[in-house]
Amino acid sequence: MGRYVDINVDSGESFGRYKLGLDEEVFKYVTSANIACGFHAGDPNVMRRTVRLAKSLGVAVGAHPGFPDLMGFGRRAMEVKREELVNYIIYQVGALQAFARAEGLELQHVKPHGALYNMAWVREDYAEAIAEALSLINPKLILVAPKGSKMEEAALRKGVRVAHEFFLDRNYLPDGRLVPRGRPDAVIKDVKAAVSRALEVLDKGVVRAVDGSEFEVEVHTICVHGDTPHAVEMAKELRKALEEAGFTVAPMKVFL
Amino acid sequence: MGRYVDINVDSGESFGRYKLGLDEEVFKYVTSANIACGFHAGDPNVMRRTVRLAKSLGVAVGAHPGFPDLMGFGRRAMEVKREELVNYIIYQVGALQAFARAEGLELQHVKPHGALYNMAWVREDYAEAIAEALSLINPKLILVAPKGSKMEEAALRKGVRVAHEFFLDRNYLPDGRLVPRGRPDAVIKDVKAAVSRALEVLDKGVVRAVDGSEFEVEVHTICVHGDTPHAVEMAKELRKALEEAGFTVAPMKVFL
Amino acid sequence: MGRYVDINVDSGESFGRYKLGLDEEVFKYVTSANIACGFHAGDPNVMRRTVRLAKSLGVAVGAHPGFPDLMGFGRRAMEVKREELVNYIIYQVGALQAFARAEGLELQHVKPHGALYNMAWVREDYAEAIAEALSLINPKLILVAPKGSKMEEAALRKGVRVAHEFFLDRNYLPDGRLVPRGRPDAVIKDVKAAVSRALEVLDKGVVRAVDGSEFEVEVHTICVHGDTPHAVEMAKELRKALEEAGFTVAPMKVFL
Amino acid sequence: MGRYVDINVDSGESFGRYKLGLDEEVFKYVTSANIACGFHAGDPNVMRRTVRLAKSLGVAVGAHPGFPDLMGFGRRAMEVKREELVNYIIYQVGALQAFARAEGLELQHVKPHGALYNMAWVREDYAEAIAEALSLINPKLILVAPKGSKMEEAALRKGVRVAHEFFLDRNYLPDGRLVPRGRPDAVIKDVKAAVSRALEVLDKGVVRAVDGSEFEVEVHTICVHGDTPHAVEMAKELRKALEEAGFTVAPMKVFL
Repeated sequence: MGRYVDINVDSGESFGRYKLGLDEEVFKYVTSANIACGFHAGDPNVMRRTVRLAKSLGVAVGAHPGFPDLMGFGRRAMEVKREELVNYIIYQVGALQAFARAEGLELQHVKPHGALYNMAWVREDYAEAIAEALSLINPKLILVAPKGSKMEEAALRKGVRVAHEFFLDRNYLPDGRLVPRGRPDAVIKDVKAAVSRALEVLDKGVVRAVDGSEFEVEVHTICVHGDTPHAVEMAKELRKALEEAGFTVAPMKVFL
Repeated sequence: MGRYVDINVDSGESFGRYKLGLDEEVFKYVTSANIACGFHAGDPNVMRRTVRLAKSLGVAVGAHPGFPDLMGFGRRAMEVKREELVNYIIYQVGALQAFARAEGLELQHVKPHGALYNMAWVREDYAEAIAEALSLINPKLILVAPKGSKMEEAALRKGVRVAHEFFLDRNYLPDGRLVPRGRPDAVIKDVKAAVSRALEVLDKGVVRAVDGSEFEVEVHTICVHGDTPHAVEMAKELRKALEEAGFTVAPMKVFL
Repeated sequence: MGRYVDINVDSGESFGRYKLGLDEEVFKYVTSANIACGFHAGDPNVMRRTVRLAKSLGVAVGAHPGFPDLMGFGRRAMEVKREELVNYIIYQVGALQAFARAEGLELQHVKPHGALYNMAWVREDYAEAIAEALSLINPKLILVAPKGSKMEEAALRKGVRVAHEFFLDRNYLPDGRLVPRGRPDAVIKDVKAAVSRALEVLDKGVVRAVDGSEFEVEVHTICVHGDTPHAVEMAKELRKALEEAGFTVAPMKVFL
Repeated sequence: MGRYVDINVDSGESFGRYKLGLDEEVFKYVTSANIACGFHAGDPNVMRRTVRLAKSLGVAVGAHPGFPDLMGFGRRAMEVKREELVNYIIYQVGALQAFARAEGLELQHVKPHGALYNMAWVREDYAEAIAEALSLINPKLILVAPKGSKMEEAALRKGVRVAHEFFLDRNYLPDGRLVPRGRPDAVIKDVKAAVSRALEVLDKGVVRAVDGSEFEVEVHTICVHGDTPHAVEMAKELRKALEEAGFTVAPMKVFL
């Protein structure tokens, strides 16, 4: 058996009558699901349904907490006090945890969403709030975060395990951050290019940034998307390529 | 040591900058707190603060889930599908449970709020949704409900324990339900009258309805209010009178 | 030039990142748009965009106010006090009116949404609240409502004009109400059947209910849907058939 | 008759069962009311009630739009796209305008709330969004803004009138901005000190900053508060002192 790697996807992002994401499709190819918790997306019914779907397909469940901004889908920067952010995360993760347990599952991980993830990448107060929330809810929860981020540092200080995340279809800056979505080179649209880059990153442990420079990474989980048929195709091809290359694709809790 | 009785109060009903209720005062006299969970009232910060306050004063914590209607304070009837209601309750109770555990406490009970409580008193589908939610979240949770209500029946069928609740300051109809708030005789405003009635009810096991008829009750917990200085005074006098009469006032989990 | 008839469609029902409805397609075939106002669906950006789209295609704009229940899409019965309902409608219609005027348009009509429409069909307090709101906002606004409904009666008492609405794809009960959505015969799915029935209804002034009985109607506007390609096809065929039959399809304000 | 000056107060900030502010008291002393519009505070019923109260006391009504953040009371910085912000303001002002007209009034002014006000003071995109919204809704609306702010500049470019605002109880920095609330010298608590400073500012046209330096202002309207009995007292004393000093205290529309 070869090296382990996890594939994660944001999911459970529907709300009421609004449907978003092809969870039923993409869950066939991933091993960990980041499930929205009702602040930036998701509602109690969607959460329950998504936990059940994950269970039926053997996908490990995690929480995907975000800012309280349904209208902006949690993608807008907000100023929140550190202590309040701790509580926002406890609330959301606690709610999802109850759904997981109602279905006989334990939460595996937490991955902050959108603007919260991006801000906590570099902002110490937000990073610490996230780490503190996890340690208060359940010290066994794994935090999904970029290597080298403030989130990782804060988690390690609190004794919270971290799964290093790599984005399948995003280009990187030399400092290890993502090329912002506004730029034309932010996203890799070609399936083959994205998948072969991922394999190379896993193989060599380095990412080539858009300027040609390289930085080291150690990848535990690869983030894919499930909001378009093209994205699902990319997830499918990634899974296939990883297995052909001898990787064991499994939930992060198996090997972290 | 005499008979046991619990005193409960709705609490944690502030929201953001809005302050509601004198939790700091009334928590001195009660033994169980029903804490709002963010749907009809409360927010993550208020929930955390209220759990801490309860802990510091030795008050047992419970969840007070309601309809998703902040503008109506959960007091308006809503048609919700049974399965959706199950999920609304899992969500809210799960969120509060996470705050309780973050503070080293376990939830003791659940008491539905407002229109949800009133509807589930007599509506089987709502009553069953509540009982099902509790059994899914944690079968040890106690449901606070009126004796003879659909809620009690549904809980007993699911093996969920029930604490029979008596309302200190409300008049009753002959069928055991409350005189609706719109009527002039709905509320007992006189502190002494309310307290002495409560003692009589505990003593004799019967409630005298507004028409003079009587019905049997077995009271485990008495509901007081904490939204006005007068209500706090009533709670204080009740506590004093109960102890003077030889009752042991304690959280319901101690004796149920 | 033949008789006039209007075609209306519910629209502007997207929210934030959530997309709902094929407004761009269905607006080619309708003459009046009922635009959601942010309570059950829609948000300020969606409202602006939808008003602009309607303007660019010559579709008259109206407000589609609903209950404050985004999670339930305004389809759940709620108990709201009469005076509060008046204010909910003033708020929503006022907001949409500002967008209309920002684009140089005047609101033509108001059509209540979902559970509000269904309840006000038969409930006097809700019907009166709607009529009162319209008369307070702008007495020239036309109310879209079923003939014989409490809404129509209340509007006429207030001097508010009413456009009688007929539902293209819904079957009717003998009392003039719709077959509830839960029943298998609620919806007419066949395009030709629906369109030919509509022409017959316009021609004869009577609707045949599901039990074969008939009741009289006078149709000013036909409600179509735009949430599926099939629904858009139905709208297209209706428009074509109406024009071939000599009707002038025009916004209700032209002929009411 | 002497020089004119207006007194404005934030109002209508209650929500559902939550009561905030002593509008009934402070409206006796002010001439313009900034009424919350349901995003950061206020709801349709509160808006209607507040417009009626203002009307009954001869207080001119204006809109007080804020960020969509009820939990944070609109006091938290949010990143919103310029075009979206335009629409947020049209929505809120439009809704309030409908209530004003339902009561036979016209909106006099708009004053952005909280974080929106503070950000638009210095941020061009937010300032332009506000000015654009006002010009689209009604070019006669007056914008309440600090002299020298980006808001003022953007409004003047759009041909929107500006009322320069001075804060009765806040200390100023040398650059004309407010001392941030976190600092101990942010707020002037002494009634006499605040009132006599206001008279001096009106008299000399200069404000002395906390470092002793001075900057010029031209004050059209003085902002008071109504959230505590002390604040109401301050408003009362200001009104009295202004009238004794020969000022005509009147709504800004009278003299702008």
